[in-house]
Amino acid sequence: MFEKEITENLSLLLSERKFSEIKEILKEFNEVDIAEILAELKEEDAVKIFRIIPKEPAAEIFASMDSDLQESVISAITDRELHNILNELFVDDTVDLLEEMPANMVNRILKHTDPDTRKSINQLLRYPEDSAGSLMNTEFIDLKKEMTVKGALVHIRRFGDSVEDISTFYVTEKDRVLIGTLSLKDIILASEDTLISDIMDERIVFCHTGDDKEEVAAMFTKYGLLAMPVVDTENRIVGIITVDDAVTVIEEETTEDFEIMAAVTPSEDSYLKTGVFRHFANRIPWLMILMLSAAITGAIIDSFESRLSSLGFLIGFIPMLMNTGGNCGSQTSILIIRCLALGELKGLDVLKAWFKEIRISLLCGVSLALVNFIRIFIMKYYFGGGEFALSLVIDMALTVSISLLITVIFAKTIGCLLPVGAKKLGFDPAIMASPFITTIVDSLSLLIYFNVAQIIFNV
Amino acid sequence: MFEKEITENLSLLLSERKFSEIKEILKEFNEVDIAEILAELKEEDAVKIFRIIPKEPAAEIFASMDSDLQESVISAITDRELHNILNELFVDDTVDLLEEMPANMVNRILKHTDPDTRKSINQLLRYPEDSAGSLMNTEFIDLKKEMTVKGALVHIRRFGDSVEDISTFYVTEKDRVLIGTLSLKDIILASEDTLISDIMDERIVFCHTGDDKEEVAAMFTKYGLLAMPVVDTENRIVGIITVDDAVTVIEEETTEDFEIMAAVTPSEDSYLKTGVFRHFANRIPWLMILMLSAAITGAIIDSFESRLSSLGFLIGFIPMLMNTGGNCGSQTSILIIRCLALGELKGLDVLKAWFKEIRISLLCGVSLALVNFIRIFIMKYYFGGGEFALSLVIDMALTVSISLLITVIFAKTIGCLLPVGAKKLGFDPAIMASPFITTIVDSLSLLIYFNVAQIIFNV
Repeated sequence: MFEKEITENLSLLLSERKFSEIKEILKEFNEVDIAEILAELKEEDAVKIFRIIPKEPAAEIFASMDSDLQESVISAITDRELHNILNELFVDDTVDLLEEMPANMVNRILKHTDPDTRKSINQLLRYPEDSAGSLMNTEFIDLKKEMTVKGALVHIRRFGDSVEDISTFYVTEKDRVLIGTLSLKDIILASEDTLISDIMDERIVFCHTGDDKEEVAAMFTKYGLLAMPVVDTENRIVGIITVDDAVTVIEEETTEDFEIMAAVTPSEDSYLKTGVFRHFANRIPWLMILMLSAAITGAIIDSFESRLSSLGFLIGFIPMLMNTGGNCGSQTSILIIRCLALGELKGLDVLKAWFKEIRISLLCGVSLALVNFIRIFIMKYYFGGGEFALSLVIDMALTVSISLLITVIFAKTIGCLLPVGAKKLGFDPAIMASPFITTIVDSLSLLIYFNVAQIIFNV
Repeated sequence: MFEKEITENLSLLLSERKFSEIKEILKEFNEVDIAEILAELKEEDAVKIFRIIPKEPAAEIFASMDSDLQESVISAITDRELHNILNELFVDDTVDLLEEMPANMVNRILKHTDPDTRKSINQLLRYPEDSAGSLMNTEFIDLKKEMTVKGALVHIRRFGDSVEDISTFYVTEKDRVLIGTLSLKDIILASEDTLISDIMDERIVFCHTGDDKEEVAAMFTKYGLLAMPVVDTENRIVGIITVDDAVTVIEEETTEDFEIMAAVTPSEDSYLKTGVFRHFANRIPWLMILMLSAAITGAIIDSFESRLSSLGFLIGFIPMLMNTGGNCGSQTSILIIRCLALGELKGLDVLKAWFKEIRISLLCGVSLALVNFIRIFIMKYYFGGGEFALSLVIDMALTVSISLLITVIFAKTIGCLLPVGAKKLGFDPAIMASPFITTIVDSLSLLIYFNVAQIIFNV
């Protein structure tokens, strides 16, 4: 990769103390790319190079670095340098930083932020982790409805540099009560003496500080927003959320869904950053619970064993039956979980989905049972070497195929209703995915199989 | 829900022909919400109400409707109304529309778009479905580097209304070769006589028309972009992609990963929109393949049955062993698949991940084996009612626990390497998730179990 050449080159230039050449090279790169290049260097070199970078891009590069490198940088730089970086950081980035740093660093960082920012930081840290409040930025531009476009532009030019997003402006009344929004595009395209009240949009798409951040992120997708105002209970604007934060939430929540479906306790860190023991701790409780609950299937087999001991040839079909049931159940549950995550199943849609699943399971069940019947017949009769009589093979194939059909119908019903039920009860639907459904479907399929066998073989 | 009241109210007003009241009500709502409200109405009523809506919001509402309702609207409206809507639609929305409509509608729509737009449409329709080209919009504002900020603003005011996004401008040379970008914020904050060349950013984050749209969407997240230019092989800008399209791609690709992991053929339509037969067709091939491949486990059991027939008590442990192996494998595979989707595993990281998984699997395997040993000992010895002698119980517990440990290590190795291998070979890693890994791990765990049993019981 090209990165390797660059990092080697930078290390070499650093050892030769050719600082201006390093600056020249880095000028070609975007801040995010520079953070990535620094991450590839030895920590010591990365910190040295970071300190050469001019003040302005430094803060943005710093915000893009991972927390380990941020910690090393903060330990190495002077109070003055720290002050400069913190001055340039947006409040939400500072809050992210504080959440990752050890206590002694937090104190040093807070000491070097100015009192106003410190107040905003404290306010933001107080919102619950999953709330819209925890996502927001307190820096935005508010306009008044009696301003003209010309006046608004003067205001924007004056304060625009200190805010992250100027795609949207917020029109407020007394006490910061939000009464409208407008975009920079609206302002640019209007004539100079137009009143803000004439071009602002009063149909505001907003959220409250306490709203769930996943739902807020979904609103960005739905309405195609670049920024959204966050208001308190009295409709006063307290901050804004930008689309990049919404995208991050969407990706984090998706990763969480994947983790839960994998029966792993969700963690905030990336896979490679997480240590072996942490991985172990995230996984073992689920494996234990599922292993112990799988003991139920063992008990079912044991309880039928004596009655069915003359029918040993039925045992070989158990894994196929359990797997097919499990696959049918997880097909349905995973699709339903995704629908729930995207907000596609509302109210009575659940019943529609269930009815759909029953019809699908009939089609799938009958097809699978038929193919299975034929397969068993061919394998055990034609290629069975005369071990089994024709009537026995037919009974065998019937037992397995009928059990399969019933199992498929049950599996798809459970796969549909369990995630929905979990959501209704306030749990994460993903918890109900594959592993738990597999355990339930396994037990059910065994009970169905053994009972069908008892009827057909009349034992 | 509040929507129900609104739709009932609208239907009532429509039957009483109180059109101006309907207009008053709809004024309160965002275009996206109006599209949602119309979707809840009877189709006939929805079309009638749509035709009352003023020209300007109508196009945006139309773009937010689902394709069934769009089709009904187009069938009902006059050529003149159609022309008005198409005039207001952005080219990428028109392309989306054309892709969903039946052939006769496509002809009618093309007839009512102006020749320039038609040319853009034909160009966009020619890009492959998964390419950046298929995502882009051909309407954007390009500036020249010798323009002043004042001149640029005049240009923006003149052309800004006809483009979707004016957060970013593109500086081009002769033949539309892209040499820089700048944001509306840069322009607003600069003084009037500043040259565009002085404030433009030459470190452009761009993509090519043929780039994979999933990778392009990931760049939006990485760099926090609002829009990205798309260039051809000669660096000429041909279009832009906006962040809302990128977010849609991210959600679609995630849904596809979920579907593939669920062993369902991915489909473009939403769950409820997809008919029962389509669902059946998406699911049955996978179920068949997996059912038939699960027959391997049956064959393994049958081949050992005669040799192990004296050890019938071992059968009850098979489901637990297979499930635990499957769970361990899918924990790893799902996490690895997510890492691959987020681009977190590059180059040698795969070996790091594998080494990590081996250590995790040792920890998990030993813990599970120990708990399992104790459980079997207690269940079969203390609560076994004297059915089994002490030495037999110990052999039994040893067999199961040792098999479990080996299975867990294999399962996690397979769960790690299979998705990575699939990606290296150019397949979608998600295909290697749970179902296939389960089938492989099931067979392996049986082979391990029966071999361990033969050694310990010396048969």
